[in-house]
Amino acid sequence: MSRYHARLAAAQATMQAKGVDALCVSVGSDLPYLTGYAAMASERLTMLVVPAEADPVLVIPQLEAPRVRTDHDLAIRAWMEWEDPIAIVADLLGGASAVAVGDQTWSTFTLALQTASSAAVWVSAGAIMRDLRIRKSSDEVDDLREAARAADRVIDELGHVRFSGRSERDVGREIAERLLAAGHDTVDFTIVAAGPHGASPHHELSDRMIQHGEAVVVDIGGHRNGYASDTTRMFIVGDAPVGFDDAYTVLRAAQAAACEFVAPGVTASAVDAVARSIIEDAGYGDLFIHRLGHGIGMDTHEDPYLVAGNDTVLEAGMAFSVEPGIYVPDAWGMRIEDIVAVTEDGMESLNETPRTYRIVT
Amino acid sequence: MSRYHARLAAAQATMQAKGVDALCVSVGSDLPYLTGYAAMASERLTMLVVPAEADPVLVIPQLEAPRVRTDHDLAIRAWMEWEDPIAIVADLLGGASAVAVGDQTWSTFTLALQTASSAAVWVSAGAIMRDLRIRKSSDEVDDLREAARAADRVIDELGHVRFSGRSERDVGREIAERLLAAGHDTVDFTIVAAGPHGASPHHELSDRMIQHGEAVVVDIGGHRNGYASDTTRMFIVGDAPVGFDDAYTVLRAAQAAACEFVAPGVTASAVDAVARSIIEDAGYGDLFIHRLGHGIGMDTHEDPYLVAGNDTVLEAGMAFSVEPGIYVPDAWGMRIEDIVAVTEDGMESLNETPRTYRIVT
Repeated sequence: MSRYHARLAAAQATMQAKGVDALCVSVGSDLPYLTGYAAMASERLTMLVVPAEADPVLVIPQLEAPRVRTDHDLAIRAWMEWEDPIAIVADLLGGASAVAVGDQTWSTFTLALQTASSAAVWVSAGAIMRDLRIRKSSDEVDDLREAARAADRVIDELGHVRFSGRSERDVGREIAERLLAAGHDTVDFTIVAAGPHGASPHHELSDRMIQHGEAVVVDIGGHRNGYASDTTRMFIVGDAPVGFDDAYTVLRAAQAAACEFVAPGVTASAVDAVARSIIEDAGYGDLFIHRLGHGIGMDTHEDPYLVAGNDTVLEAGMAFSVEPGIYVPDAWGMRIEDIVAVTEDGMESLNETPRTYRIVT
Repeated sequence: MSRYHARLAAAQATMQAKGVDALCVSVGSDLPYLTGYAAMASERLTMLVVPAEADPVLVIPQLEAPRVRTDHDLAIRAWMEWEDPIAIVADLLGGASAVAVGDQTWSTFTLALQTASSAAVWVSAGAIMRDLRIRKSSDEVDDLREAARAADRVIDELGHVRFSGRSERDVGREIAERLLAAGHDTVDFTIVAAGPHGASPHHELSDRMIQHGEAVVVDIGGHRNGYASDTTRMFIVGDAPVGFDDAYTVLRAAQAAACEFVAPGVTASAVDAVARSIIEDAGYGDLFIHRLGHGIGMDTHEDPYLVAGNDTVLEAGMAFSVEPGIYVPDAWGMRIEDIVAVTEDGMESLNETPRTYRIVT
């Protein structure tokens, strides 16, 4: 049985257990996870319809039919420009009374399907897909490791790159090129947040020049062979700003302690709490303004999330970021991020570059 | 009144006319159109809630608050990691009985909101936003023209580039670099479809080597200052394949006739019909497998669509692609694409490169 046959069968088993009659997935990673085919995000509907107890059908725009490459005998229903794909999907759903829709599906399609199949109850497919995707196979962990190593190569290279006198945008463009050269198929994000910008965790590249004495948060990621990388390291241009070293010592301790705590049987929230308590005890608690981490796989962010209140019990094969941060508004920010995979008896860090900060010019 | 105040006021007027109590927009172009702020696509909800008769509120993850730049006094409700943004939005909706949701909003959020505000009727925001966005202001046409000219520069440059002996992927990478160098902020797509690949309108870059005697479809686009470019030209490596020239003469005539037909008062479907009838009369009708074109603005594809059955009457300020194609499976494909804007008395082609094919090495 191919990888995709097995996954579709597992989805159907989960659907039957949850009382879902049909699963509809569109853009995002659910579709390539189940079929190997990634749809273009578009006003032209692509939708895989998986009945709980019959063969799935992939509904695609006819002009994209030549793009579809699957390694198995998936039925295709290609629609012409003058056909209504909503009616086609509604027809495939038949009398389904409970339909699950992929999380990233555009709402315009879901609302139209709700009208076309008004007797059905519509629920999020998240719960079904989460059960399938949250525990990675060894092949998937291999893919995550390769992606992480490719990102690590870029981090290592950046230790020899000049930062001062260049804009964040310029450094970001160089990082994008290096991510591709290191083996990524796509660049997803290049956060280069210098000085006060470091206090914005999701800072966008700016034209501001990086200056001597600034701390620079470098958080980078892309996709390689369908799986995501995501790592953060700190770079200091010359000398660290006042107060930085003390906080960094705390951050390193918190990040290391959280990683070491990862093992089958502990909860996602408990890992968050390990890092958070160390940062709080040192007096920086108000400056750690986000959750500890997010699951990673085909999506950069997916289950499990390491956040207060998430009682998910970790199991071997789960993979996620461990990325505490300390952010001082208008001054500087710092974050250290590794992707870790839960093993049978603990964890493996897929990122391996030193967690010390790099001093650069 | 700022551009965004005016747009929000226009949205509210349209909502009142349509009996919609609240508008919720998230990822995609509706949010930057209304506020100037583009949300990250993420499991963390960003949502602008616009009541029909009260001030709008932008709900964002607290850690992304530093990214928000708006030029007006938009109320912000930043939610912390341990808060439930769905409950926050539901609370803002209050007793709204008809709620419109942005088309590209992730379904997981819409389904959760439907549960949280179960008394409301949920409809697509497409009809509201379409009315606002379909007629571009002169500023917007200027932005589209600048984007088109930037893409034109790349097309011109490609006339001097070697194609043979290089992979589609390699040429695509060069085009991506040239799109950025020509002034695009992002590269959205680089279709380089050589030989038989040309018959796949949405072909993805492959590692196949481009060979002498092949026709290459080059369809490229990016965003510049928030507006999209999208143009297609043909490149022939050495000599055109058998049968290509006869078909190309037909395609050029069809594309030119459709462009010339564009004017206020004609329907979108009639423009499609002009090109299609020329291609059908020449015997290639079965090989023109897609609609004639799509509207363009902040999204690469938006209303109006030039397709059979769309009776939208063209008005000054509407902008769209005119892109007929002829596709011979397993042999070659051809397409010519310009972005045109409807003027008070006709149309302006925003792309200006010659529609002849380029002979390259």
